[in-house]
Amino acid sequence: MQYLTDTDMGLDLSEVNMSVESAFADHGRGLVQMPPKVYITLPEGDFRTMPAYLPSLSIAGVKIVNVHPNNPPRGLPTVMALTIILDLATGQPVAVINATRLTDMRTGAAGAVAAKYLSAKKEIVLGVIGTGRQAEAQVAAISRELKITEIRVHGRNPVHVRKFADRFMEFPCHAMTPEKACDCDVLVTTTPSTAPVVKSEWIHEGTHINAIGADAPGKEELDPVLLRRAQVFVDDPAQAIHSGEINVPISKGLYRTEEIAGTLGEVVIGKKKRLSPNAITIFDSTGLAIQDLAIAKIAMQHGRKFELPFP
Amino acid sequence: MQYLTDTDMGLDLSEVNMSVESAFADHGRGLVQMPPKVYITLPEGDFRTMPAYLPSLSIAGVKIVNVHPNNPPRGLPTVMALTIILDLATGQPVAVINATRLTDMRTGAAGAVAAKYLSAKKEIVLGVIGTGRQAEAQVAAISRELKITEIRVHGRNPVHVRKFADRFMEFPCHAMTPEKACDCDVLVTTTPSTAPVVKSEWIHEGTHINAIGADAPGKEELDPVLLRRAQVFVDDPAQAIHSGEINVPISKGLYRTEEIAGTLGEVVIGKKKRLSPNAITIFDSTGLAIQDLAIAKIAMQHGRKFELPFP
Repeated sequence: MQYLTDTDMGLDLSEVNMSVESAFADHGRGLVQMPPKVYITLPEGDFRTMPAYLPSLSIAGVKIVNVHPNNPPRGLPTVMALTIILDLATGQPVAVINATRLTDMRTGAAGAVAAKYLSAKKEIVLGVIGTGRQAEAQVAAISRELKITEIRVHGRNPVHVRKFADRFMEFPCHAMTPEKACDCDVLVTTTPSTAPVVKSEWIHEGTHINAIGADAPGKEELDPVLLRRAQVFVDDPAQAIHSGEINVPISKGLYRTEEIAGTLGEVVIGKKKRLSPNAITIFDSTGLAIQDLAIAKIAMQHGRKFELPFP
Repeated sequence: MQYLTDTDMGLDLSEVNMSVESAFADHGRGLVQMPPKVYITLPEGDFRTMPAYLPSLSIAGVKIVNVHPNNPPRGLPTVMALTIILDLATGQPVAVINATRLTDMRTGAAGAVAAKYLSAKKEIVLGVIGTGRQAEAQVAAISRELKITEIRVHGRNPVHVRKFADRFMEFPCHAMTPEKACDCDVLVTTTPSTAPVVKSEWIHEGTHINAIGADAPGKEELDPVLLRRAQVFVDDPAQAIHSGEINVPISKGLYRTEEIAGTLGEVVIGKKKRLSPNAITIFDSTGLAIQDLAIAKIAMQHGRKFELPFP
């Protein structure tokens, strides 16, 4: 058994996007095993257990990931993750992977796949609400699939906004009010908000939105009115209903599960699509275990390895 | 983060029994978080993901365990396991534990707790059907709680039966037909059978049975008629209905969930009990994640440690 860390170093983001896209295609075709992630609540946060089996990539395993908002003052990331990979033939654990950075990257990759298939344009003004690690991951991954002509970013902390802009010197990057950031072709929201931060009237026709932040019951970033103006695609219906952008509107009776337009997997295999250039499309991302396996497949070729005795 | 292996060396079985009993007590009081284990099917077996949080022992984590019956000819155990332990305050993974032997031991401990509370006698003739690792673990753990005056063992392979008997030289140990092995005070069944191996008429009044083998849909060891003569206690109702001894009889309409007498946790806290010395009691064990955490709590003080960089 090996322990692997720093596997994100030198990963090719285009290759990651491709692997994650292939996992979504398999998901769309019903070829994966992936029960909904399981939540355990801890005193100051939670952790989620995400097992899956992705036959087409010949990989099976479990990601374990926590969310602890009080961690940064302690010098620890809010989100940390391990992925355990099992041998398909024998079930033996063969790798334990430090998946903290990989988690950012695979979520970025899902956003990139969604934007690739659902954006009405190939050259885009990219709006970004939120300036954390996931905002960076989304921009980095999307830039591999679409040509970004400008970034319009909004964050509450000017220092974080500046740091974000410095990270993407290759694009014109402007700090804006949230309303102006929403005036774009593709919008990415990556806040931990529990109340809408994007008003429906700020979003014009033809926009695609990656709604990334809501990943637990009670979280939401978008005005529920906007959901009903849009085609909402989810990564996985069960997870999205439980903990995605649509979870709060559904629990309040402001959105119905029957209104979900389809899954990203169905979009990737061509079964579902943006209905017109003027449609508003939303990708409601909760994060799937198959994304973690897809990136693990590549990551296992990289990083530092420690050999451990097992069994 | 540490990787720990060989933690079973030098573990005190009485201490393990006590820790597992305490976990069952918390379970009986509704103080634990433990969703039902999640199964993923692989080409030649399966693996199960078992997250939990046990506040009274201040421990949270996930066990990942496979079942691959074709492994032994390959020189690998059928069952192998890892337990990941997370820091309660920060969610950071702090330990990855080789839990293969610990899995045997914690299942043995649950059997010992069940026998301690449900056996009608303190001095017992112990019947054992099956001679594998779990049969040994049951006998070793039960011997810490009850005085074993004789072991009556049945196994299909005489070589395995002899090996089993050699392991327990401290007790009179006799190989028997299954019928004669069932003429005992406490019976342990640990086979991977998918059809009953114990007939109802072989079991006399007052017997307690640890039904250990059935741990997946389709598995069963006991005549369904016997279930209806007995008080059946489960470790966890959801898991037992899905994959315990009662799963096949329930699916065939031969047993009803309403007939379950209670949980082992309820027995430990005194809420449920054996109704009379003549009652037949059955403990339907599927294996709980809290058992894995209870033994991990002790095991982390033992074994070989490897320091690994994280995050």
